[in-house]
Amino acid sequence: MTTDLDLAELGQQFRVDAVRATSHAASGHATSSMSAADLMAVLMARHLRYDFDWPDHPGNDHLILSKGHASPLLYAAWKAAGAITDEELLTFREHGSRLEGHPTPRLPWVDVATGSLGQGLPVGVGIALAGRRLDALPYRVWVLCGDSELAEGSNWEAFEHAGYERLANLTLLVDVNRLGQRGPTRHEWDLDAYARRAAAFGWHTIEVDGHDTAAIDAACTEAAGVTDRPTAILARTRKGRGVRAVEDQEGAHGKPVPDADEAIAELGGERSLTVEVAKPAATTAPRQPHGVHTELPTWSPGEEVATRNAYGEALAALGDGRQDVVALDGEVSDSTRSGFFAERHPDRFFECYIAEQELVATAVGMQIRGRTPFASTFAAFLTRAHDFVRMAAVSRASLNLAGSHAGVAIGEDGPSQMGLEDLAMFRSVHGSTVLYPCDANQTARLVAAMADGTGIRYLRTSRGAAPVLYGPDEEFPVGGSKLLRSSDEDRLTVVAAGVTVHEALAAADDLAADGIRVRVLDLYSVKPVDAHALLEAAEATGCLLTVEDHRPEGGLGDAVLDAFTDGRPVPRLVRLAVTTMPGSAKPAEQLREAGIDAAAIAAAVRRQLDEPATA
Amino acid sequence: MTTDLDLAELGQQFRVDAVRATSHAASGHATSSMSAADLMAVLMARHLRYDFDWPDHPGNDHLILSKGHASPLLYAAWKAAGAITDEELLTFREHGSRLEGHPTPRLPWVDVATGSLGQGLPVGVGIALAGRRLDALPYRVWVLCGDSELAEGSNWEAFEHAGYERLANLTLLVDVNRLGQRGPTRHEWDLDAYARRAAAFGWHTIEVDGHDTAAIDAACTEAAGVTDRPTAILARTRKGRGVRAVEDQEGAHGKPVPDADEAIAELGGERSLTVEVAKPAATTAPRQPHGVHTELPTWSPGEEVATRNAYGEALAALGDGRQDVVALDGEVSDSTRSGFFAERHPDRFFECYIAEQELVATAVGMQIRGRTPFASTFAAFLTRAHDFVRMAAVSRASLNLAGSHAGVAIGEDGPSQMGLEDLAMFRSVHGSTVLYPCDANQTARLVAAMADGTGIRYLRTSRGAAPVLYGPDEEFPVGGSKLLRSSDEDRLTVVAAGVTVHEALAAADDLAADGIRVRVLDLYSVKPVDAHALLEAAEATGCLLTVEDHRPEGGLGDAVLDAFTDGRPVPRLVRLAVTTMPGSAKPAEQLREAGIDAAAIAAAVRRQLDEPATA
Repeated sequence: MTTDLDLAELGQQFRVDAVRATSHAASGHATSSMSAADLMAVLMARHLRYDFDWPDHPGNDHLILSKGHASPLLYAAWKAAGAITDEELLTFREHGSRLEGHPTPRLPWVDVATGSLGQGLPVGVGIALAGRRLDALPYRVWVLCGDSELAEGSNWEAFEHAGYERLANLTLLVDVNRLGQRGPTRHEWDLDAYARRAAAFGWHTIEVDGHDTAAIDAACTEAAGVTDRPTAILARTRKGRGVRAVEDQEGAHGKPVPDADEAIAELGGERSLTVEVAKPAATTAPRQPHGVHTELPTWSPGEEVATRNAYGEALAALGDGRQDVVALDGEVSDSTRSGFFAERHPDRFFECYIAEQELVATAVGMQIRGRTPFASTFAAFLTRAHDFVRMAAVSRASLNLAGSHAGVAIGEDGPSQMGLEDLAMFRSVHGSTVLYPCDANQTARLVAAMADGTGIRYLRTSRGAAPVLYGPDEEFPVGGSKLLRSSDEDRLTVVAAGVTVHEALAAADDLAADGIRVRVLDLYSVKPVDAHALLEAAEATGCLLTVEDHRPEGGLGDAVLDAFTDGRPVPRLVRLAVTTMPGSAKPAEQLREAGIDAAAIAAAVRRQLDEPATA
Repeated sequence: MTTDLDLAELGQQFRVDAVRATSHAASGHATSSMSAADLMAVLMARHLRYDFDWPDHPGNDHLILSKGHASPLLYAAWKAAGAITDEELLTFREHGSRLEGHPTPRLPWVDVATGSLGQGLPVGVGIALAGRRLDALPYRVWVLCGDSELAEGSNWEAFEHAGYERLANLTLLVDVNRLGQRGPTRHEWDLDAYARRAAAFGWHTIEVDGHDTAAIDAACTEAAGVTDRPTAILARTRKGRGVRAVEDQEGAHGKPVPDADEAIAELGGERSLTVEVAKPAATTAPRQPHGVHTELPTWSPGEEVATRNAYGEALAALGDGRQDVVALDGEVSDSTRSGFFAERHPDRFFECYIAEQELVATAVGMQIRGRTPFASTFAAFLTRAHDFVRMAAVSRASLNLAGSHAGVAIGEDGPSQMGLEDLAMFRSVHGSTVLYPCDANQTARLVAAMADGTGIRYLRTSRGAAPVLYGPDEEFPVGGSKLLRSSDEDRLTVVAAGVTVHEALAAADDLAADGIRVRVLDLYSVKPVDAHALLEAAEATGCLLTVEDHRPEGGLGDAVLDAFTDGRPVPRLVRLAVTTMPGSAKPAEQLREAGIDAAAIAAAVRRQLDEPATA
């Protein structure tokens, strides 16, 4: 049995090791580690159930350090648990070390990268929800966060979600050390202020002295005993605890203590305590079948189908064959058509309401538990979750996102609802895949491909119906494209995707009637682009005209360049994109107004080829 | 005196007009307008103080319809107030009409575009804060929002901000109609659930029957009498109120009622009531001096200064000369250096804590009140506010944003803190200006230029010190660039910005020592780019090598193309950018690892020019 005295000693060791690691690195957050050391000591020694030799054990608890800057504390704890050596601890923040300034899943015991504050709890909710509704396993989710980050709205989306879903398997420990980076927080040591807020959102709350290990232990035990709601443990702590030079001092954030030797002496010197972390109970891993045959829906060429509908139908079909597929939506499933999945697989559909950060975070949490999530909302509103998507890439997460209502083509609803920046946002995400289909069969195939992908996969869908162009057996590899019009006399290549493919075809046919031949390339894979096809088109026609229902920056027009940035000759380029601020109008009026409809394409081709406009 | 009966009648007229406008448009949100009609009637007739003939009247109240999809209600109210005609009302959602699907400041009585939910309150807080701390005027801010949107974390950032600042001049009316787009909200008609949450955040709360005009009137009066905190009026309403076919029915969201004539009859037919909106008291406009001479700080070439420091110093200096300049920060002012402004102008500095959506929204609110806001945080964390930036562009807002700690050059802190996607994000914003200085004098000049700009202006600053390159009298127009190395024998142009300018110079000098001449262009204006200089460089050297501390997508490499998308010949392109997932390392190690340091540039130049590498 670990005594309270041992726990206090363990906390001191964590502090000493945090001081040592940051001083050795001459960088890093010593004081933020020291405030939470006793919380971590109690968790490790008494409550966490985790097999460090088997990080993928399905019964393992999940511990998320939302205040990722306190990574020295986490690493110190792992050292005590025997997961890393003291030698490795002292590689903290060094080039090549996996002990980064903020923890990432380069380390097998880290579920999710933190360091952008306000993300640990939202992701923790996703894991806890999976535990409750999918895995039916008794693992617990522990999130350790700072007080400053409770200003982030993302946390309140998570409080609401967890409270509503009554996630009793989730415990939040808040290290209320009173001091943010710049100075005092809004509520300083007013634990009641935080407790009132959390309780209002349906949480059980406990207030403790965060340096009283017995009190922390009792709080964690109490939390585990609450069966109908999540618990927030609000712990009053002192930043830099134990070292007079920095304890509860402003200006001591984000740096080593001024004199490490003195600090270590003051903390009672180095110790070599080990902690035996309890292992989870033996369990059968949750089912995560992959690769089961899925019968995708198909459509006949000429049918009028919106790609968002094809998304919904394909996703529902995918769910028939694959139990790992889950769908999440931001209260617009009737629009994104993820509702089709919800109808067929209600047990694997997660309504996240109008809270896009929590939507993406929940999906991140689900993939930690081995699921293949598809999260959807309007493309425009995914901008709300940009930081979560960015951090999901740092987390090496495997995630599918679908944004509907792309571009001005949505029509009357106007610019607030139009996704016009989403391609730029998703292209810039590390390791992302960006897909933008123009017809239903293409959409369905791409949805299936996404499910087997890696990294962040984004699918852009359209509101309005469009004719099916491709046969049901056509294949659409990621990184591919489709040549829809070509001849030996092509004088230019129109590169389009999504709604503009249809406009490009109309323009090409119109031009062909006048004897002007242009190629039409459907660049449905915006990232990676089909460099081979683009190079071929460039060589054959010398000019690429891109046309996209997106802002001119960061979208299709920029994407084609990905094939030409290695010093090879670059074709001439003409770009048609949305440079106006749209208002309300019908879809066809919007495309005309933005200068991306068939007439605009034909006119731009004629201008470029110096051909007279038709009467 | 307007009687309760008149108010109820006015509400009915609003409903009739919402039915008429949406039916005429065959599109739009009738039922969401109808639930809030009585709230709007009471506001217009009894509480709003607003001069429709003088929308810029400094004493006007501000009314923000956060549930922007209920625009027919707003337009119906304006019709009753005589601001628009019935004829114009029926142009709703038509091509060319200023009565868009969601309200935008194309209309003189709209402060801010809404339609992306959860933005009205955050912006309203910014206005109320300006009223309280800057204008010292007795105007009130009224925000009308939906219940669904209370799931957005941005609203809770705003609740926290307003509660903490005790903004008694702010009243939120929540139209609790129980139904979201897809179906029931989490809390349906549980007004207490919302009241508990708002009260926990320090708000006064009142629960009313949202169809009882006397009760609404009393609540608004009570709100105006509360002097130490903001008030939330939680109004229980019925969506589609007054028309049996849609009232409180699922599936009736976002569309006209099925039978308009029947509905109008059921609502008692058309009326022609007018409403006399009270005018604000006469007042003296708040001071908003512009163009006052500002003595910018200067530095001597060779000094080592971080551009973030130059930002802070320039901003503080700007504040000396211009009373309209205000600064806001997300609790990292010691890092972004906006703290320099805070020290010198504490009355015009606004701490927004770690809540980036609220940070940007507050800035949007301040510019509505004629201020010139500069809002800063880490570049990485501005992704948190992407949707607010996007909507600020729709709002035609005039806004300065500064993102510090750009790129891998920050060093040990790792990828969570590195702005690597910010250029892509800001370039894609409509009408934006994107600036990325490499030295202190350049930074200061650009900060001054930003203050006089239009639209969304973004400045990207660096953490580490760099030598001052330019003299204190050098000018840096937006849309310009600086040629730092050039000769008649240049065989290639290196295009750089920010930290890579210094690396490019070192590479050029190294290559020159081997007799290989390359041009170096400092493209500090990433948007708009200096097309003239790029064309000239292309013509002279035939190849542009871009090097940037940013992801390869959407940043500098893509930006240079903005000069070549009109069908003219395009030079050869070589792109160096951050394609790796960085870990922790020192700044120089990070640049080397990412392949964007001087050695990498020189090597890429040699490869491109087919020159052997040096031993």
